[in-house]
Amino acid sequence: MTFRDLAEARFSLRNYDSRPVEQEKIDCLLECVRLAPSAVNFQPCVFYVVTDQVLLAQLQDCYNRDWFKTAPMCIVACGNHQQAWHRKLDGKDHTDIDVAIAVDHLTLAAVDMGLGSCWICNFDAQKCAQVLDLPEGVEPIAMVAIGYAATDEKPLKKRKSHDELFVYKK
Amino acid sequence: MTFRDLAEARFSLRNYDSRPVEQEKIDCLLECVRLAPSAVNFQPCVFYVVTDQVLLAQLQDCYNRDWFKTAPMCIVACGNHQQAWHRKLDGKDHTDIDVAIAVDHLTLAAVDMGLGSCWICNFDAQKCAQVLDLPEGVEPIAMVAIGYAATDEKPLKKRKSHDELFVYKK
Repeated sequence: MTFRDLAEARFSLRNYDSRPVEQEKIDCLLECVRLAPSAVNFQPCVFYVVTDQVLLAQLQDCYNRDWFKTAPMCIVACGNHQQAWHRKLDGKDHTDIDVAIAVDHLTLAAVDMGLGSCWICNFDAQKCAQVLDLPEGVEPIAMVAIGYAATDEKPLKKRKSHDELFVYKK
Repeated sequence: MTFRDLAEARFSLRNYDSRPVEQEKIDCLLECVRLAPSAVNFQPCVFYVVTDQVLLAQLQDCYNRDWFKTAPMCIVACGNHQQAWHRKLDGKDHTDIDVAIAVDHLTLAAVDMGLGSCWICNFDAQKCAQVLDLPEGVEPIAMVAIGYAATDEKPLKKRKSHDELFVYKK
């Protein structure tokens, strides 16, 4: 599969089969996450890999959607603002950027292994931090549902046109 | 190439051949960028695709490194804070996250096409915004050097261990 095929194939899966994700696939997903680059290689990330049913139910409380309850596992991608690189010139905090790179790796790796996933950003981050007992300065940036698709349905991908997104300076 | 191979193969290339990147490769890179997901699909991004020598020299002024002067092209990935999704619960701005996802797609697509690339974050963002004449609310988040490698050298990838990055909740 070319990278372009992979990017085409990825979509937000919101209907999971109950089948658990095999440990070797989880290991491969996490290795892809680990390989992700970060600003100045500071790697200010920590990932909670949650398959425990009690904890999953608590995470579902942070994002109360029926479809999310079908996901057999969730990875909560967190950023440590104290560990992250801040640009000297203007203090820009690169935590969100570094975590997003790692999660993008995660969701693309999932497709490549026949898994589906969904970025969740519209969750109660404060409640999630409490559930995971995160230390000061560590923020849950995204919850990622992962698993096998329950059906073959694929939503149509709607994107802006090239002209809206790109400015050529030739 | 599996996604894992791709993630392994990507590195920050800081030594470019003068050979320009073919237009069809640029088109494919941009298509991969266009396919990248974003929060609520708001796509608050705009990408300046710069091959113009005068403008490249001005961008080099925003990040004054000899190696950057070897890159035949640069894509400046910008985020529009006014277009981006902000989480209702706490106002969290998702601009950086959305731009980072798109740039991750870009750098991985480059590897898949035999190109190298390098994220540049340590640049003068204010000067860059002036050079590109960006409108209010649009921030240059990353400059990305792209091109062919001048040599076969590949730096060793240093990453934290699994134990440092992952917390299992089984």
